[in-house]
Amino acid sequence: MEDEDYMRLALTLGKAALGQTGTNPSVGCVVAKHGRIVGMGAHLRQGEAHAEVHALDMAGAEAAGSTVYVTLEPCSHHGRTPPCADRLVREGVKRVVVATQDPNPQVAGRGIARLREHGIEVTVGVLGEEAASLHEAFFHAIRIGRPFVAAKTAMTLDGRIAAKTGDSKWITNAASRAFVHELRHRYPAILVGVGTVLADDPSLTARGDAAPKRDPMRAIVDSRLRTPLHAAALSPRADGEPPAIVLTTATADAAARSALEAHGAVVVDCGPGPRVDLELALRELYRLGIGAVLVEGGGAVTGALLAAGLVDKTYAFVAPKIVGAGGPSGFEFPSVDRMADAIRLDRLKVRTFDGDVLFEGYPVYSKETR
Amino acid sequence: MEDEDYMRLALTLGKAALGQTGTNPSVGCVVAKHGRIVGMGAHLRQGEAHAEVHALDMAGAEAAGSTVYVTLEPCSHHGRTPPCADRLVREGVKRVVVATQDPNPQVAGRGIARLREHGIEVTVGVLGEEAASLHEAFFHAIRIGRPFVAAKTAMTLDGRIAAKTGDSKWITNAASRAFVHELRHRYPAILVGVGTVLADDPSLTARGDAAPKRDPMRAIVDSRLRTPLHAAALSPRADGEPPAIVLTTATADAAARSALEAHGAVVVDCGPGPRVDLELALRELYRLGIGAVLVEGGGAVTGALLAAGLVDKTYAFVAPKIVGAGGPSGFEFPSVDRMADAIRLDRLKVRTFDGDVLFEGYPVYSKETR
Repeated sequence: MEDEDYMRLALTLGKAALGQTGTNPSVGCVVAKHGRIVGMGAHLRQGEAHAEVHALDMAGAEAAGSTVYVTLEPCSHHGRTPPCADRLVREGVKRVVVATQDPNPQVAGRGIARLREHGIEVTVGVLGEEAASLHEAFFHAIRIGRPFVAAKTAMTLDGRIAAKTGDSKWITNAASRAFVHELRHRYPAILVGVGTVLADDPSLTARGDAAPKRDPMRAIVDSRLRTPLHAAALSPRADGEPPAIVLTTATADAAARSALEAHGAVVVDCGPGPRVDLELALRELYRLGIGAVLVEGGGAVTGALLAAGLVDKTYAFVAPKIVGAGGPSGFEFPSVDRMADAIRLDRLKVRTFDGDVLFEGYPVYSKETR
Repeated sequence: MEDEDYMRLALTLGKAALGQTGTNPSVGCVVAKHGRIVGMGAHLRQGEAHAEVHALDMAGAEAAGSTVYVTLEPCSHHGRTPPCADRLVREGVKRVVVATQDPNPQVAGRGIARLREHGIEVTVGVLGEEAASLHEAFFHAIRIGRPFVAAKTAMTLDGRIAAKTGDSKWITNAASRAFVHELRHRYPAILVGVGTVLADDPSLTARGDAAPKRDPMRAIVDSRLRTPLHAAALSPRADGEPPAIVLTTATADAAARSALEAHGAVVVDCGPGPRVDLELALRELYRLGIGAVLVEGGGAVTGALLAAGLVDKTYAFVAPKIVGAGGPSGFEFPSVDRMADAIRLDRLKVRTFDGDVLFEGYPVYSKETR
């Protein structure tokens, strides 16, 4: 096995924990010695052990003289857990291979420096691009202090998310919908507008063919607290977390607020109203420990986020069908004046799912739109 | 060389003449003898020699004992030219390989039967699927007595063909636009609505990087004859054909009609009005010798054709950009009530052009839409 093979395994371990680490990165770690794997680990939950700690615990006495592969630079600061760099030094590891540096200003190269100061050989950049992709939400969120926002939309070829009657079952096919369930599993939270709750009553869980999946937290943008208590999005969670975070305004109805809170929901004021201040709402979610959200519509909330320049990534499915004009658009915000000022998707990946096409990309905002 | 290799060459010859044979199929033909090509031909212009005639002329005395590869069953009837089946018999060819049978009721297996009656060995179906694709417009048009209708649309990811101001330059990239020029070359005519003429003043020619291209005929759907005489779509053609066919109604303004005719345009009544009867308009184009049209918008005429079930194929480009709501849709027809009744694209091919995605498919109409 080469460095890249071990690192690929570390990336797989990290990816498996995506969505369950709050605002923390989903780091993976592998410890190898004399060509054998002696430890594996991933960061599994915010506030608990980092990936390196799990992997070194597994390695035990074998850690001395080993090579440690880790997808992100080991931390050097005392957070909720002691610095991993110190632990690596203490275990007497010989070499550390790091995929990417940590952009966190509290770490930023200091972890690597600490290791080198203690004579540990450090290699940086092995599968760095893959690791940057694994940690994209964390890298983004830590820089700007709000969750990474990915917008998932399922549209017809003519850009509609429903017929004029509101009927939307189904736009995409089974293969696309299965991928969406995978996506939900990778994000700590799903965010929808109350319009979607009222129209579709989605349960916003991560159903799938495979083993039971962790359900993401649910966040509902609801300026006037119209979410009904019987909404599927407020159904109890098996893990004991609150059923949903309801993002509203200071002027929302007090009785509705009390009823939602009595039902277990967390109700958060995001500005004076009448509409939810979306940027503030995102900052509140971050404060509540959510490092990334998957926005699942409807067109109004997705459009408002886009118009505010707050969408960081799109997963836009286009199904090969034409429904006609009159139904809602996937992105309901007022058109820009010039086509040249349209929001462009950068670093585009195009994938097909049995004929549906997924546009995965990163919005680039023009002056007009941002 | 195997049968398939010769047939592939015959298909290439036929494809090269696509768009220039009016309502006739673009047939290609190769004559081979003792492993050498001795004749090649294609049908180049309606009313002139068929592909077999050109190829046999080239072969001369070598035709006797040869094998003839032809993309479509040789004709057996006296049309504007004598039957090709008789010519093949007379030349003493040994074997004829046919890719597809002719669906034309005047031929329909009779050409093949005639050859076999005269002791010629006939093989049918070599690269049959490719030939059916090459001849799709002809096969379709001959069955239903109107041109094959392909709709080309260039949309943003949110299904718009312009910003709310009407600005649409550019939605797709240079690679997509180059492909559109290729497409124009393959269709005998381009059809647009007068709205597009007024908004964009397109010249509707087949510009391209390569050698000068044949320009398609121009057809304009113009119920009230609003096309201005200075429109680029009415500019003179190098080949002496009328600048455009203007499809209008019996109640259109007589003075406007005279002015257009004096300018060289062919003005055709398609129903009593107030709107052009689109099915009738297509039949008139067929009568004028046009076997296929490429519809290039705008959204109103494309939408009306779709709503009437008259679009046979789509070339829908989706560019990875989001412009917002308010501009025109690529398909302006009233939404159906149920998503399950949306027009579905069958036999879909998805291709990418530097990030733009082309959805090439064949609309399947539900009861509600047709």
